[in-house]
Amino acid sequence: MSNTIDLLNWRYAAKKMDANKSVPQEKVDRILEAIRLSASSSGLQPYEVFVVTNKDIREQIMPHAWNQQQILDGSHLLVFAAWDNYTEDRINMMFDLVNDERGFTNEGWEAYRKMILNTYPPRDPEVNYAHAARQAYIGLGSALIAAAEEGVDSTPMEGFDPEKVDQILGLKEQGLRSVIILPLGYRAEEGDWLVNLKKVRRAKEDFIRNVD
Amino acid sequence: MSNTIDLLNWRYAAKKMDANKSVPQEKVDRILEAIRLSASSSGLQPYEVFVVTNKDIREQIMPHAWNQQQILDGSHLLVFAAWDNYTEDRINMMFDLVNDERGFTNEGWEAYRKMILNTYPPRDPEVNYAHAARQAYIGLGSALIAAAEEGVDSTPMEGFDPEKVDQILGLKEQGLRSVIILPLGYRAEEGDWLVNLKKVRRAKEDFIRNVD
Repeated sequence: MSNTIDLLNWRYAAKKMDANKSVPQEKVDRILEAIRLSASSSGLQPYEVFVVTNKDIREQIMPHAWNQQQILDGSHLLVFAAWDNYTEDRINMMFDLVNDERGFTNEGWEAYRKMILNTYPPRDPEVNYAHAARQAYIGLGSALIAAAEEGVDSTPMEGFDPEKVDQILGLKEQGLRSVIILPLGYRAEEGDWLVNLKKVRRAKEDFIRNVD
Repeated sequence: MSNTIDLLNWRYAAKKMDANKSVPQEKVDRILEAIRLSASSSGLQPYEVFVVTNKDIREQIMPHAWNQQQILDGSHLLVFAAWDNYTEDRINMMFDLVNDERGFTNEGWEAYRKMILNTYPPRDPEVNYAHAARQAYIGLGSALIAAAEEGVDSTPMEGFDPEKVDQILGLKEQGLRSVIILPLGYRAEEGDWLVNLKKVRRAKEDFIRNVD
């Protein structure tokens, strides 16, 4: 029996959250910790997570996200904001941090740093942003499981105007771009058209291909 | 205490796998099931997962992935292959499947289908592929946690030549493009430079931003 499978079966993208219920901060903290611990390419963690509890800000965001009410009815809105580019500074920051934390410098690791420094910063920023955005989705995958483990509902949303959200949160000045938003809250007892419908996935035979 | 956090702390990208150990198929099946159950944008699941146990094929792939030995020393190589484009057929396939499984047609859902049909297929295929690829990374996030739950090591790799892997697996003809590969296996007792090193992540204060 796998707990992860149970959690994934339990979860769904809640369409109506209960505006009177708040997710306790320690649950949110554990969800954030799962994101922080998630894998990323070369360990660069090329994104940040904004935790928006401020209601005014969430009210400003909502109309730019098809007025999806969970943004307001949930208690916490996570905004995954990817690096808009890989710069030398950002790459060195992470490689230096690794050296600091491990307490030594490793020749192979430094050669790898040089390779990344020679490869990433010269590329088109859009290529780098796209790469960074993908890493945020690994964190999202962790967040969805961690939220379910806490009995917390989460509804990933790509349907929003990233430029508007970037403006509202002042992301551009920080070299960040919003890629996905995730309200956290509790499913409402009534008014959710999806809650009782079957979770549908392609059959194993149509999704998994064995090459043996 | 969170199980997910423990699992994420346990896991790392094994640099040397034990060529004499094989992951039992039922463990692989649960990892695959976690991927299959993962969320995706509009529920489209725009990717497939190839499970390569065939040694010849893995030997062909390895030189196009910086000769990373885990590809051969692991027992299963997962290849996440994203749809190269969103076509009307693919979108209708998923919406029809949802209707079939739920046993009814819903007006709102059909309006949503039309909106997606009007939006996705006319876009540049590269935009659609990039979108599909991100969804595969949600599945990757689930896979890493599910593997850890099984006590199985997993090493996500972006460092490979996707065109070569596509050729070897015949993906292009199927409208698929490889985005990430993931050997599954068991860490070797010796020869892994990373196994005893500290997992390094940015501090919470540098990764999480509170907007309250």
